[in-house]
Amino acid sequence: MIPDKVAIREVALRDGLQIEQPIPLRAKLELLSAIAATGVREVEVTSFVSPTKVPALADAAELAAELWRYPDLEFSALVASPGGAARAVAAGLTSIEYVVCASDSFSSANVGRPTADAVAAIGDIAGIAHDAGGSVEIIIATAWDCPFDGPTPMQRVTDVAESAAAAGIDRLAIADTIGTATPRRVTDLIAAVRDIIGDTPLGAHFHNTRGAGLACAYAAVQAGITRLDASAGGLGGCPFAPGATGNIATEDLVYLLGDCGVDTGIDLDAAIAAAAVASSVVGHGLPSALLAAGDRKRN
Amino acid sequence: MIPDKVAIREVALRDGLQIEQPIPLRAKLELLSAIAATGVREVEVTSFVSPTKVPALADAAELAAELWRYPDLEFSALVASPGGAARAVAAGLTSIEYVVCASDSFSSANVGRPTADAVAAIGDIAGIAHDAGGSVEIIIATAWDCPFDGPTPMQRVTDVAESAAAAGIDRLAIADTIGTATPRRVTDLIAAVRDIIGDTPLGAHFHNTRGAGLACAYAAVQAGITRLDASAGGLGGCPFAPGATGNIATEDLVYLLGDCGVDTGIDLDAAIAAAAVASSVVGHGLPSALLAAGDRKRN
Repeated sequence: MIPDKVAIREVALRDGLQIEQPIPLRAKLELLSAIAATGVREVEVTSFVSPTKVPALADAAELAAELWRYPDLEFSALVASPGGAARAVAAGLTSIEYVVCASDSFSSANVGRPTADAVAAIGDIAGIAHDAGGSVEIIIATAWDCPFDGPTPMQRVTDVAESAAAAGIDRLAIADTIGTATPRRVTDLIAAVRDIIGDTPLGAHFHNTRGAGLACAYAAVQAGITRLDASAGGLGGCPFAPGATGNIATEDLVYLLGDCGVDTGIDLDAAIAAAAVASSVVGHGLPSALLAAGDRKRN
Repeated sequence: MIPDKVAIREVALRDGLQIEQPIPLRAKLELLSAIAATGVREVEVTSFVSPTKVPALADAAELAAELWRYPDLEFSALVASPGGAARAVAAGLTSIEYVVCASDSFSSANVGRPTADAVAAIGDIAGIAHDAGGSVEIIIATAWDCPFDGPTPMQRVTDVAESAAAAGIDRLAIADTIGTATPRRVTDLIAAVRDIIGDTPLGAHFHNTRGAGLACAYAAVQAGITRLDASAGGLGGCPFAPGATGNIATEDLVYLLGDCGVDTGIDLDAAIAAAAVASSVVGHGLPSALLAAGDRKRN
């Protein structure tokens, strides 16, 4: 049995755009408008990180100032430090995602400190979000594999999950940062993490870099996951595999889940239209299957 | 639980090449050599159909004459009529695949006759194969959806399966010809067909046109299927969706299944190398994920 409903969080504006060349704020708002029209509820809209490292998202505060136009959407912002969390909250984004890399090598390469130091900041970040009346989600990156260290021991992931739960976080997610997970390992890790965190909401974030992104997403749903990230058009590459695919495409996931009887609340035609806008604003093609092939004939 | 072993049939030389511009025989032999080096055992090598309709495979007999070089491989040829079966057998290819489209509209468009007439020829084709000491597999095309008629009623598929079993066929396969299947419908149809054909070997053939090809393949394996088709590099488009992906890529399937503990007997590095050869002989890029991203780091 699989769940009747799955919530998809749209991440094109953050994970999708972060390795692209910077685009104007008005282009982001055009994409957001198309995304809002799909019926999606949750949107990861930007990150408050170093503008030098991620110039594509340097306009985070300016974008945040425009979000009042969409009162029905739930926006979240990704941060890498308490300082980023403070900036997000100051900009009005109190739903915070904080990434902790389960692999030390990836953590050091990504944020300049090992996993344990990143874990130690969870309490401060949770405090900043909660003091602002918001919430915090910990995203455990490189949860299955690290491009430097190879397979991530499951214990490293469950240790982070345990620390996060103890720090009073609101949600957890496990992320296949480099797109190497496959269904059996997805099922295994979800079971292990679920054992640790009990009823804390758990999401999953997959990349399609080895073609298995939708297979992993479906395996996650079979394992009871009801929160998945996806990106319009599959926007977002894999910085560790130039030319390869990154995020799973929202419209491809909506097609698959809908065809399996799972309600995502997202209109497929509108999602395909949003993928076309995503492609347009970045000025190049995207790996989305539905954008190329369209829906199937229904009758 | 999933099976320990799955046999992949390599279809790049037939389903992969059939809608490409014709390539020289020596290029096909170069691709075959790369495919043979992967460790795959079963190769769908060509079809004996109208050379006017499928000019890319007009050299079927010439290619068949070269296959003695690979005594360890099991070659099969696709046919659309008893005449094609007779030509295949005359060329030394006695392992015959005969396609029956479950949808009348697709059958009429593809071979100029409705499903019932195609079914009526099964006995003759089986006789030709068996008289030559060979075997016949019925491939039920448009088993989930038809581009003209929409969803294929399950009964149409099980009716074909029942007729095929009664005609003494050796193997059956169900094919997602236009790449619209999703895991739940895969599971359902496999169960329905299995009920009809008992222990007759059953395979499945998926396309990745809506991005769900590997998810469907994995769902099929979960449902007990141990025979899957795939194409080096994902060679082979979808004639009903220009620009879209066709066959699932052998190396992507090998990666996913291997990572789930399923033995395919295929070496992943050699499969990626074969995908590169496939891309080279047709002179354009291919949708393979592993060809772009490579294997994951293993330690």
